[in-house]
Amino acid sequence: MQPAFTVWLTGPPNSGKTTLAEILRDELTSLDCPVELFDGNILRDKLSPNLGFSRSDREMHCRRVAYFCSVLNRHGVACIVALIAPYEELRQELRQEIPEYYEVFLDCPLDTLAARDTKGLYAKALAGELPNFTGVTDPYEIPAAAELTLDTQDEKPEQCVAAILRGLREQGLLPGLG
Amino acid sequence: MQPAFTVWLTGPPNSGKTTLAEILRDELTSLDCPVELFDGNILRDKLSPNLGFSRSDREMHCRRVAYFCSVLNRHGVACIVALIAPYEELRQELRQEIPEYYEVFLDCPLDTLAARDTKGLYAKALAGELPNFTGVTDPYEIPAAAELTLDTQDEKPEQCVAAILRGLREQGLLPGLG
Repeated sequence: MQPAFTVWLTGPPNSGKTTLAEILRDELTSLDCPVELFDGNILRDKLSPNLGFSRSDREMHCRRVAYFCSVLNRHGVACIVALIAPYEELRQELRQEIPEYYEVFLDCPLDTLAARDTKGLYAKALAGELPNFTGVTDPYEIPAAAELTLDTQDEKPEQCVAAILRGLREQGLLPGLG
Repeated sequence: MQPAFTVWLTGPPNSGKTTLAEILRDELTSLDCPVELFDGNILRDKLSPNLGFSRSDREMHCRRVAYFCSVLNRHGVACIVALIAPYEELRQELRQEIPEYYEVFLDCPLDTLAARDTKGLYAKALAGELPNFTGVTDPYEIPAAAELTLDTQDEKPEQCVAAILRGLREQGLLPGLG
């Protein structure tokens, strides 16, 4: 049994995490790679209904997901995580927990993030009305050690996913799926 | 991919959950069945370090584990859970969450449980000094719908595990492992 990998998509709200995660899942599925997608928000209902968005709560939620991924990876199931994970120290911890951790930073300027936001959360946060909103009223620390940084303002989602698959192949994480 | 099953070992402290879980894991491994063992106490460190032993905390911990098992089962990994899960309503919920749920009740009289206890927790609880101790100062509701009830006072661990394997086979949960 070849252990599998975890692709952790990190970036502020509206940077494209869920969009890329879903396309990547479909691509891996079409390559017959067993895969599980964990979307941060959906997961919160299942795993962490009692957690909020303080630093310690975000950390605990991410740790839980990371543990989960490490077990699935051990059984050959690849994981894709779409979860902000805003702190560098936390991401270093995730990297320790998950043997085959592949971090992808979705980089996108604030004005584009705000323009994409159909729920008006950025507008609220920029007006100071929404506390703990990552990238505006709460920190998002730029990843220092990401395996891959994607410009999700100018690159199309399909291009981004192709870059992730290329990166996974280069690291030998998609054996037999070349 | 054949979905796998979850064996949930329920019973009060010292009823033999961890002992049976470990033997069962080894037996399934020797049958080439991919398997993951979740021991309640170890899992708490990983998944629920902030939870205590109130009813709602115990429920949340069990729900988290059940979700985890359902995902692993979907990928063909059998799960064994050694976790008290003391409430009938909660166990019904676990049964809903996990498609192939196989509940095993480890039945053992209180005096035997107390005699087995090397940590002296039963003595403390019986003296009223330990709150939230299942079966003494906290409820343990006898399972009403367990797939299997084992007498862990008189039956040897190996006999108990043999009975579980027989039960799994009878339910068609060990295909090709007959």
